[in-house]
Amino acid sequence: MLIVGELINTSRKEMGQAVEEKNIDLIKSIAVAQVQAGASYIDINCGTQMEDEPQIIKWLVQNVQEVIKEPICIDTPDPEVMESGLSVIKNGQPMINSISAEKEKFESILPLVLKYGAKVIALCIDDEGIPKTSDDRVKIVRRLVKDLTCAGVREEDIYIDPLVKPLSTGDQAGLEVLETIGFIKNEYPKVHTICGLSNISFGLPKRKVLNQVFLTHTMAYGMDSYILNPLDNDMMGFLYASRALMGGDPYCGQYLAAFRKGIYN
Amino acid sequence: MLIVGELINTSRKEMGQAVEEKNIDLIKSIAVAQVQAGASYIDINCGTQMEDEPQIIKWLVQNVQEVIKEPICIDTPDPEVMESGLSVIKNGQPMINSISAEKEKFESILPLVLKYGAKVIALCIDDEGIPKTSDDRVKIVRRLVKDLTCAGVREEDIYIDPLVKPLSTGDQAGLEVLETIGFIKNEYPKVHTICGLSNISFGLPKRKVLNQVFLTHTMAYGMDSYILNPLDNDMMGFLYASRALMGGDPYCGQYLAAFRKGIYN
Repeated sequence: MLIVGELINTSRKEMGQAVEEKNIDLIKSIAVAQVQAGASYIDINCGTQMEDEPQIIKWLVQNVQEVIKEPICIDTPDPEVMESGLSVIKNGQPMINSISAEKEKFESILPLVLKYGAKVIALCIDDEGIPKTSDDRVKIVRRLVKDLTCAGVREEDIYIDPLVKPLSTGDQAGLEVLETIGFIKNEYPKVHTICGLSNISFGLPKRKVLNQVFLTHTMAYGMDSYILNPLDNDMMGFLYASRALMGGDPYCGQYLAAFRKGIYN
Repeated sequence: MLIVGELINTSRKEMGQAVEEKNIDLIKSIAVAQVQAGASYIDINCGTQMEDEPQIIKWLVQNVQEVIKEPICIDTPDPEVMESGLSVIKNGQPMINSISAEKEKFESILPLVLKYGAKVIALCIDDEGIPKTSDDRVKIVRRLVKDLTCAGVREEDIYIDPLVKPLSTGDQAGLEVLETIGFIKNEYPKVHTICGLSNISFGLPKRKVLNQVFLTHTMAYGMDSYILNPLDNDMMGFLYASRALMGGDPYCGQYLAAFRKGIYN
């Protein structure tokens, strides 16, 4: 299970303000807290800082690396910003968030994946947009895995994001993701699957319950990585419970440790 | 989705007392409340009333049927009590809880299944006890389905209970149930699967979370029936969310209706 901590993102009000005010202590403390709560990677996204994004991401990466040993996930659609962030990586193997099967994006990001030997999140989308059916998704997954591996990326460094659509826009949205995970696990057992959780519940009430159930459903189908807020105790509680129930927690040791740490209220 | 409401069971303190005191109004109100909350069957179990169980079950079935139209699930290991309860059924097709692959139990309950044209919960256990591996479960499932259908029971009237062991007694307990569901859905698509939820969490802290996750995992694998407390709003909330996410709730209509009814706090 790989958890990418999602909190250092300037589209979040607290982080946007911290970057504006150069309040690096707050940002560092959020990085440390996420690692302590179980994050293996720390995502950094400063996409709202349009004027000086390449410099700001460098500043963020350098500072965050001073207080954690875990590697960084650079989160930007802009290849220049991506390279700027990657250029100062020193904590292990970086992660790129993200590439996709869109021609321009694929061609501009791939060289960075290779140059930095990065893990890469590959979004299930091409130039025709978000796939409409499970079959369309499967086609894009096949192309992504083929094009990435032929270029030299190892299967185990690929993290396919099936691209979660809101359930409110189509009642098969959840099932399509599950089917895509099932396909990947079967066809490419070394390739990982990853997603964020909150899109699924957009536009519906009681989003928290839907997000929790979506986490457990995707885990039941074999998803092994998540971009989430590890400081959300309730969500982490569901994650530990789900892993234990899927037989992935010998003697329920991590579930019990989470209980003792107070993750469960 | 078939929900068997589990509350009319004299091993629950309130129900035991109500039966002792012949407080039939309370019992009737619990039956009605369970139906209103979504139960399609009302389970009746008076196993603690050993002295006069055949008469008490008859009294319970007759009275409960006065206030609901939904059919009854007779819950006893004793063939005499089972027949006594079944003999006064008038609300549609009854359900028998339960038969198993144990020789004596199978032979004593099967005639009642056939005589009353009942749906039947078939426990995944034989004379060697609870199966230890998934393979052992598969063997018992095959035998149950074969022996029941050869005797004339329709596949769609069979509800296999994989028999849930506590996760605290072995960390593969949840996964074994999921594998069994997967096998049944694949091999016998008309046969239903059913279970109670609380056994899984026995002996572990925060049982509620484990039970909720186990519900959603089993739903994700295709379990379609549950013996549960439909007055547990939190659990029902997870059930509605899980069904919607599995693509089984057009336009999320039932999820939204549950929200409007206040199921989600």
